[in-house]
Amino acid sequence: MTDGKVLLAYSGGLDTSCILVWLKDQGYEVLCYMADVGQEEDFEAAREKALKIGATKVFIEDLRREFVDELIYPAVQANCIYEGVYLLGTSLARPVIARRQIDIARQEGCAYVSHGCTGKGNDQVRFELAFYALQPDIKVIAPWRVREFYDRFQGRADLLAYASEKGIPVVQTTSKPWSTDENLFHISYEAGILEDPDVTPPVDMWKLTVAAEDAPNTPERITIAFEKGIPVKVTNKDDGSVVTGSLEIFMYLNTLARKHGIGRVDIVENRFIGIKSRGCYETPGGTILRVAHMDLEGLTVDREVRAHRDQHLTPAFSNILYNGLYYSPERSFVTSSITSSQVTVNGEVRLKLYKAHVSVEGRSSATEQLYDMEESSMDVQGGLSPQDSEGFIKVQAIRIKKWGESVIRNGGKF
Amino acid sequence: MTDGKVLLAYSGGLDTSCILVWLKDQGYEVLCYMADVGQEEDFEAAREKALKIGATKVFIEDLRREFVDELIYPAVQANCIYEGVYLLGTSLARPVIARRQIDIARQEGCAYVSHGCTGKGNDQVRFELAFYALQPDIKVIAPWRVREFYDRFQGRADLLAYASEKGIPVVQTTSKPWSTDENLFHISYEAGILEDPDVTPPVDMWKLTVAAEDAPNTPERITIAFEKGIPVKVTNKDDGSVVTGSLEIFMYLNTLARKHGIGRVDIVENRFIGIKSRGCYETPGGTILRVAHMDLEGLTVDREVRAHRDQHLTPAFSNILYNGLYYSPERSFVTSSITSSQVTVNGEVRLKLYKAHVSVEGRSSATEQLYDMEESSMDVQGGLSPQDSEGFIKVQAIRIKKWGESVIRNGGKF
Amino acid sequence: MTDGKVLLAYSGGLDTSCILVWLKDQGYEVLCYMADVGQEEDFEAAREKALKIGATKVFIEDLRREFVDELIYPAVQANCIYEGVYLLGTSLARPVIARRQIDIARQEGCAYVSHGCTGKGNDQVRFELAFYALQPDIKVIAPWRVREFYDRFQGRADLLAYASEKGIPVVQTTSKPWSTDENLFHISYEAGILEDPDVTPPVDMWKLTVAAEDAPNTPERITIAFEKGIPVKVTNKDDGSVVTGSLEIFMYLNTLARKHGIGRVDIVENRFIGIKSRGCYETPGGTILRVAHMDLEGLTVDREVRAHRDQHLTPAFSNILYNGLYYSPERSFVTSSITSSQVTVNGEVRLKLYKAHVSVEGRSSATEQLYDMEESSMDVQGGLSPQDSEGFIKVQAIRIKKWGESVIRNGGKF
Amino acid sequence: MTDGKVLLAYSGGLDTSCILVWLKDQGYEVLCYMADVGQEEDFEAAREKALKIGATKVFIEDLRREFVDELIYPAVQANCIYEGVYLLGTSLARPVIARRQIDIARQEGCAYVSHGCTGKGNDQVRFELAFYALQPDIKVIAPWRVREFYDRFQGRADLLAYASEKGIPVVQTTSKPWSTDENLFHISYEAGILEDPDVTPPVDMWKLTVAAEDAPNTPERITIAFEKGIPVKVTNKDDGSVVTGSLEIFMYLNTLARKHGIGRVDIVENRFIGIKSRGCYETPGGTILRVAHMDLEGLTVDREVRAHRDQHLTPAFSNILYNGLYYSPERSFVTSSITSSQVTVNGEVRLKLYKAHVSVEGRSSATEQLYDMEESSMDVQGGLSPQDSEGFIKVQAIRIKKWGESVIRNGGKF
Repeated sequence: MTDGKVLLAYSGGLDTSCILVWLKDQGYEVLCYMADVGQEEDFEAAREKALKIGATKVFIEDLRREFVDELIYPAVQANCIYEGVYLLGTSLARPVIARRQIDIARQEGCAYVSHGCTGKGNDQVRFELAFYALQPDIKVIAPWRVREFYDRFQGRADLLAYASEKGIPVVQTTSKPWSTDENLFHISYEAGILEDPDVTPPVDMWKLTVAAEDAPNTPERITIAFEKGIPVKVTNKDDGSVVTGSLEIFMYLNTLARKHGIGRVDIVENRFIGIKSRGCYETPGGTILRVAHMDLEGLTVDREVRAHRDQHLTPAFSNILYNGLYYSPERSFVTSSITSSQVTVNGEVRLKLYKAHVSVEGRSSATEQLYDMEESSMDVQGGLSPQDSEGFIKVQAIRIKKWGESVIRNGGKF
Repeated sequence: MTDGKVLLAYSGGLDTSCILVWLKDQGYEVLCYMADVGQEEDFEAAREKALKIGATKVFIEDLRREFVDELIYPAVQANCIYEGVYLLGTSLARPVIARRQIDIARQEGCAYVSHGCTGKGNDQVRFELAFYALQPDIKVIAPWRVREFYDRFQGRADLLAYASEKGIPVVQTTSKPWSTDENLFHISYEAGILEDPDVTPPVDMWKLTVAAEDAPNTPERITIAFEKGIPVKVTNKDDGSVVTGSLEIFMYLNTLARKHGIGRVDIVENRFIGIKSRGCYETPGGTILRVAHMDLEGLTVDREVRAHRDQHLTPAFSNILYNGLYYSPERSFVTSSITSSQVTVNGEVRLKLYKAHVSVEGRSSATEQLYDMEESSMDVQGGLSPQDSEGFIKVQAIRIKKWGESVIRNGGKF
Repeated sequence: MTDGKVLLAYSGGLDTSCILVWLKDQGYEVLCYMADVGQEEDFEAAREKALKIGATKVFIEDLRREFVDELIYPAVQANCIYEGVYLLGTSLARPVIARRQIDIARQEGCAYVSHGCTGKGNDQVRFELAFYALQPDIKVIAPWRVREFYDRFQGRADLLAYASEKGIPVVQTTSKPWSTDENLFHISYEAGILEDPDVTPPVDMWKLTVAAEDAPNTPERITIAFEKGIPVKVTNKDDGSVVTGSLEIFMYLNTLARKHGIGRVDIVENRFIGIKSRGCYETPGGTILRVAHMDLEGLTVDREVRAHRDQHLTPAFSNILYNGLYYSPERSFVTSSITSSQVTVNGEVRLKLYKAHVSVEGRSSATEQLYDMEESSMDVQGGLSPQDSEGFIKVQAIRIKKWGESVIRNGGKF
Repeated sequence: MTDGKVLLAYSGGLDTSCILVWLKDQGYEVLCYMADVGQEEDFEAAREKALKIGATKVFIEDLRREFVDELIYPAVQANCIYEGVYLLGTSLARPVIARRQIDIARQEGCAYVSHGCTGKGNDQVRFELAFYALQPDIKVIAPWRVREFYDRFQGRADLLAYASEKGIPVVQTTSKPWSTDENLFHISYEAGILEDPDVTPPVDMWKLTVAAEDAPNTPERITIAFEKGIPVKVTNKDDGSVVTGSLEIFMYLNTLARKHGIGRVDIVENRFIGIKSRGCYETPGGTILRVAHMDLEGLTVDREVRAHRDQHLTPAFSNILYNGLYYSPERSFVTSSITSSQVTVNGEVRLKLYKAHVSVEGRSSATEQLYDMEESSMDVQGGLSPQDSEGFIKVQAIRIKKWGESVIRNGGKF
């Protein structure tokens, strides 16, 4: 590792361009790294810009398939969600981005990595905990936490002045009044005008999905087939499309969901560092998959397996992801039981997409038989004798009667 | 208590009418009890029918307000949900129904209570565990679990024949190909053609809500004000309505949600007795309240309080309700912390209702200040120094670095 | 499967001998099965007795090693305990006993299995749920739940009379005033005079261990080595013994613990069927292993892995075992993460055994390095800068200060 | 608040004496605060020393009763324990100490508080989070995290040199090779020679309890009476003592436990900041109370209440205490259900104390009747019909059979 070399996570935007030049001015050799996790971005323009303003090398890496296979689908299998609403889109991309950054830093002999995250958010934590796990002796430069840097750049105007002084090309001289983070799973909007939690986001903020009002007036119906909790085929009966392949399925669901206005949420959440924060998110395809996967679990997963999983694996994995602890012993432990929970999640779910809403219209499984139509039937006895229910209730009642007697004895009321 | 007297939970329908007459034939004096929990029902017609076919007394009790105040709102406060989807509408009504039934049984000196629940469902358990808690020495007659009864009545035809023989008036000679349970919180549909989980429910099954396709093409916007997690006022800016009063608010939200097609779900769930079962539900007003309440908690509840509540109180109370253990020591224990969790849930949520979807457009609280716009801001330093984040991350990393070193030492891959 | 053949779990005692004869009188061909799980028993005498009174075959199976390897050591790895005190000795033996019983029933073509468990205990549930999982169409005859049987045999006198009438040899005409269940992991005592929870067990009841007062006046010191959470070697420095082999280690620890009076407990516990019950237990070797294993986990397991495991795997697996659900989907799910939790549990624990007490005198690990003496040191800075702690505390305090302000604003007191 | 005034938590020892003088040299007016939480200390000597070396005021506060009533007994009610072994003695004292320190700081107009905790331990976190909750704008001076201070005082020699230079009286010129923290609940030993986790603590380290080998050769028997989970009377049948009063009971149990060598533990634990640390503890009276309280809960607490409490309240409250979050919204939430869990914990437990071991010899409750000797009896039918157990098992088996069929169908093995 060379003390003078730093691998910067570069976006092409104003902030990381200024950081690039500032790092060079501090005496570092700066290499740039851009991860393609599905965000809309002109990667080649960014490459040229980086080289132009002084990067000695630029690495652009397509991580989309590993993002889907290693992060998104396990999160779907585990029904991950944060605080009941947020599908964790930003968190999910961080582990693949950080891993490749460390790989390249190692390969290029960089003793340092750097990023443009602010000092109050979750992402600094997510990136750095991943860096430290993957390369415990890595040195991290977080300019927004370096006094010299943040004292100098107190607002956008300071960055623009610096860009002008240093010959950094600037595309937009004004920025949107919010920040975003985008990948193929989602886009987030926060900060700026959104900091007032009672301000309704402007209609033109939402980028990925159409408004429900503008979505088609006719529903569209699809069938998603799962194997071991992972989507393996999507069939669109309306237009005859059949899609397979992990990334391809995800992209296709994104297209459908965007068209039908599916996946917008707006919440006040709690950041890892303990600050409440307002965030708006669009997670189109992920929202469809969540509905479908949970539904198929109803048909194919044992009640107690589901209860244990819901009680522990789902919230634990969700928090681990949110807090940036993907590379941690607890994540290895917690996810070690995903496979066991998903072994029976085989079958198909039929969905209707209409005006921001995903509804289930039916589900079936050719292989799993925990659902037994005859046993379930109210009209047929099935294997169960009514006397058995009698005994079941009587035994459940032993403890309850004892308690009822004691409440009554103590004059309590119910 | 008189051994010859039985208080029957009577619905006016074919099943419980036959049970009434059958009980009388067994030598019991039969009193009838009908709980008004908001279901659409001609109570007076049912009263006349019961008296006509042999009931010695009929009690019709309006339990709607206690249902809302004692069951529905605490469930809203706790965000109760079963298996991620079902809002527990049937379960929620059982405790108030059973409690009044035992009260009347005691007052009238009935040693027995009876009901028309089948021997394979949840409701037999819910009613009877409640009966046994409230009156541990009560005797329960569950005809659908009495061999003599269920051998005799093997299908609807047998019931119709009996009705004809005994002069029981029958309104409908054919029944719908599913069963329902209705109250002011919800309606359920199960059994019959729904037993095939891949059959899409017919469009004319849904009774409470319009189809999304038939809902208005214009959104409607309302504001719900909460105090300590309970809705205290709904304002409709579109038409100027302002509604207060616990039952009144709930009924008003029902009206709006029905109009906009809000609250339909279709799932395969796990019954208490371990059988998988397909159920369709409409929970109109309850669905709006869930969205609003969870959103306001984001703004006003501390992160760790929420996490502890989500991890324990919510699933525990939901299971207790589903399994019919409302009158139990564990319910008393589990709900003892609801108040503490809701003390800060004060404020307003602005919602948009449109085509089956409820979306949040903003939220505010005049009294709670856990959300701090300046602290949250990405542009302003607030109380937090960037160095503090540095230290926070470094301390979090101690454990993670140790682990990373050990994975690397052991040649593991990440 | 032949409808006339039943495989009876036979103990050689009065109860199961009467059951054997009674089953024969009901027209069954009776085969007998005895599992050797380490209990003190004259198996050959029992075999002769069974054949003499009419069994057509007798199977005596040594299950000790699979009991240790498949049940006891996984329970040690997971620190299983029921209600904070009971190490689950009876529950742990049931799965291996039931599995072999079903194997033999299948091999011998028996359509029935039978056992001598009472109708109020846990063991009937444990055996039968295992039978039904392993062979869902098996038919179970539980004579103590058959009216004809339990009406006839209302007490020991009835059994003795029947034995005399049928020529069943009886060794003891009086029985101990309590019941026991023994295997190589433990012995339990319950019922009889122990039913009064305030009666101190008589000193001569305890069979496996000496009283602390009678234990040696000199401590004995041993070292237990673990690999992946499983004991692989015990060294006794006092006498130079070195023991390896899973069963051999367990037997050796039993010998030591019995000599030092280790492993007695006396509790009131809650049975699966909801009845409270008083039980006394001796678990000699298991008690030593629990202390040693938990201690080594302190040195070698990551904090968060341990916390997640303690919060979910330990209580879940313990309850599953107690309730007889070893052969269940939830057990498969829950234990699927044991391996992941134990991968670092490698090292040695030094123990002192003295007068019913096990104390830890030191622990070490040649391979695991999560414990870092320098980092831990209060005298040396290690990798941690004091400023980092400052930042850690300041970030933790963000949320706490906000709460403190709000308590103060609302005039609350702390 | 005056910017020049600091309230220092003073112990009379070398560290805090040097801090006192150093703070004065920095220009502060220093007031000293000593909390009497039951540690053995010459408080008056410390007062004189503080005044002599420059404190302008000294506050010595007896907090022993509030420590027992507000912290220790609630922890006993909740069976608090950290990582299965440690009874949280240091953590438990911090909240009462910090609260009085803030009270006095406020009363005396001190804008600052200070303490002598190191920068790698738990106590800095516990004190400061409490300070910030109770007085969010308080300023904390932690000299061991101030570069100027810790660079100057790199070892005991530097402190001694400073003391000599500044005229600070020094009693001991050598210190013990470990650190301690003492209060009436416990004493801790850590650091120094204990940092090697395989070093057995020297026999003369243990201060509060005798070694088991030196404890009396005759057991002593006592009875502890609880009301709502709190000890209200201890009776010693051997010598006729009867003790009442919360502090008095605790002190008496301490005396007995010290005499019998009860309450020593030695563990490697995980600090809040993520470092593993070895600690030895003596918790004499607390160890007796834990055994007694848990035993009485077996007799008097409903199974499901206990299970819910064990699963959530116990670990949550224990972690909150360990991590110094006593004054936090989550602590208020979590402990809000203690009362509900303890309402039935009324009765007496009979214990035997002998050679480091506490054993239960019986328990009873005059008021609680969840334990029912007849119902529990294996000889008497009680309220339960054997057929009921049959039904209970059959219903439990529905799910299990379905699963067994599917395992068999898929060729799985059990």
